[in-house]
Amino acid sequence: MSTLNHKAKVRLHVPSRLAAGQTVTIEGTQTHYLSHVMRLGVGNRIKVFNGDDGEWVAEINGQKRGSVSLRIEEQIRKRAAEHGPVLAFAPIKKDGMDFIAIKATELGAERLAPVTTDHTAVGRVNEDRLRANAIEAAEQCGRLSVPMIDSVLPLAAFLETWPTTSRLYVLSPNAVDSIYDVFSEMSGSSERNTRQPGFLIGPEGGFSTAEERMFDTIECVRRVKMGQRILRAESAALAVLACWQAIAGDWR
Amino acid sequence: MSTLNHKAKVRLHVPSRLAAGQTVTIEGTQTHYLSHVMRLGVGNRIKVFNGDDGEWVAEINGQKRGSVSLRIEEQIRKRAAEHGPVLAFAPIKKDGMDFIAIKATELGAERLAPVTTDHTAVGRVNEDRLRANAIEAAEQCGRLSVPMIDSVLPLAAFLETWPTTSRLYVLSPNAVDSIYDVFSEMSGSSERNTRQPGFLIGPEGGFSTAEERMFDTIECVRRVKMGQRILRAESAALAVLACWQAIAGDWR
Repeated sequence: MSTLNHKAKVRLHVPSRLAAGQTVTIEGTQTHYLSHVMRLGVGNRIKVFNGDDGEWVAEINGQKRGSVSLRIEEQIRKRAAEHGPVLAFAPIKKDGMDFIAIKATELGAERLAPVTTDHTAVGRVNEDRLRANAIEAAEQCGRLSVPMIDSVLPLAAFLETWPTTSRLYVLSPNAVDSIYDVFSEMSGSSERNTRQPGFLIGPEGGFSTAEERMFDTIECVRRVKMGQRILRAESAALAVLACWQAIAGDWR
Repeated sequence: MSTLNHKAKVRLHVPSRLAAGQTVTIEGTQTHYLSHVMRLGVGNRIKVFNGDDGEWVAEINGQKRGSVSLRIEEQIRKRAAEHGPVLAFAPIKKDGMDFIAIKATELGAERLAPVTTDHTAVGRVNEDRLRANAIEAAEQCGRLSVPMIDSVLPLAAFLETWPTTSRLYVLSPNAVDSIYDVFSEMSGSSERNTRQPGFLIGPEGGFSTAEERMFDTIECVRRVKMGQRILRAESAALAVLACWQAIAGDWR
């Protein structure tokens, strides 16, 4: 569409609807980033997206202390469905969760679901912080949408809400099946593009024996393992998403 | 072998040779970790490994300010070859490189090679810091060896030292072939277990046109891509190692 596309390096997620000629005001940390980190001002152009209206070029047409106004000019990418897997994970320490939110966004997760388990050591999940990390990662990796952030649920409640027609892969060092065997089954199947898979990553201490036993009683759950080395929870989250995208997802 | 195996939770890499009855002294940050973080003292047992002699149980038999001595008791894992791929990467900012060293160790890389390229923005590589991160990750993930850390080389020199019989996969968003297609080719081939593959990850700014052109002239180099979203350098490093292990490496 427009060559403006190539000139604008900054890309921001905005909560407002986007349409040609509209004015959108941004505030807070995004203003600081635009004005002080990227040193952009009136007349400069950026890209904006909101998850609903695709991606647009916008011109900065007003700048005040703490707020910047943008005139929406031209659509450069249409709205497109961005289907991806669900990543469920036991809350871990702050840095690890920042990491999970950022990397899962880059790797195309559609939904992030914090789930507390028997051995979960971290009680509090800052959902706003997860969302802020996901937004920043979506801005940088070129996605048109930001992953949804679910409220924290205990494992049993999470499993109850999980649709029985979708596969939920539980990462467990005690599992027998390898990622490759299980994912390549899916990649050839008709389910591949129709049903949203999920992955569940346990806490540093792993799942309890009772939890592992419960997984084996649920038909849509499949326990899988990733080799012999001990992976940290956040490494396992990134690794399983990358393997999925490579073997059965949108990298093929 | 011994049930001591299960009781000792702390696992340290030591530079000394290990044999039953020997005394080994550790100093510096490991002493601090043992005495003050894990609060272990005389009579407590830990596991130690050194990359050459497998893994041993050791008893703390002396503790001074700044040093701890260990009596090596019993071997619990024999020395075993841990073959893995080479991860070559353009230096990035400190946090990103810490991340690469830690995650590449967890994911089984055998060698880490920092390589400067046309668009590399970070000049200095702290090899000691890379090594310290790799050691810590090896301690935690259960490896018997620590990845080797190469000295920084310019891209041309790195490519000259690369064995022509080994595949070097260069991650590039401009590539045509997907990870899956390229890796599954290898997974069925007789090369799989005999030749050490390498992966090369460019800097944030990507490879220059001249570099991309050069890659296409080298027979053992194959450019591959991982989807449409923009991955940060450190995410690409972890993702490609995970995909390799899952499709053609030791997770199968």
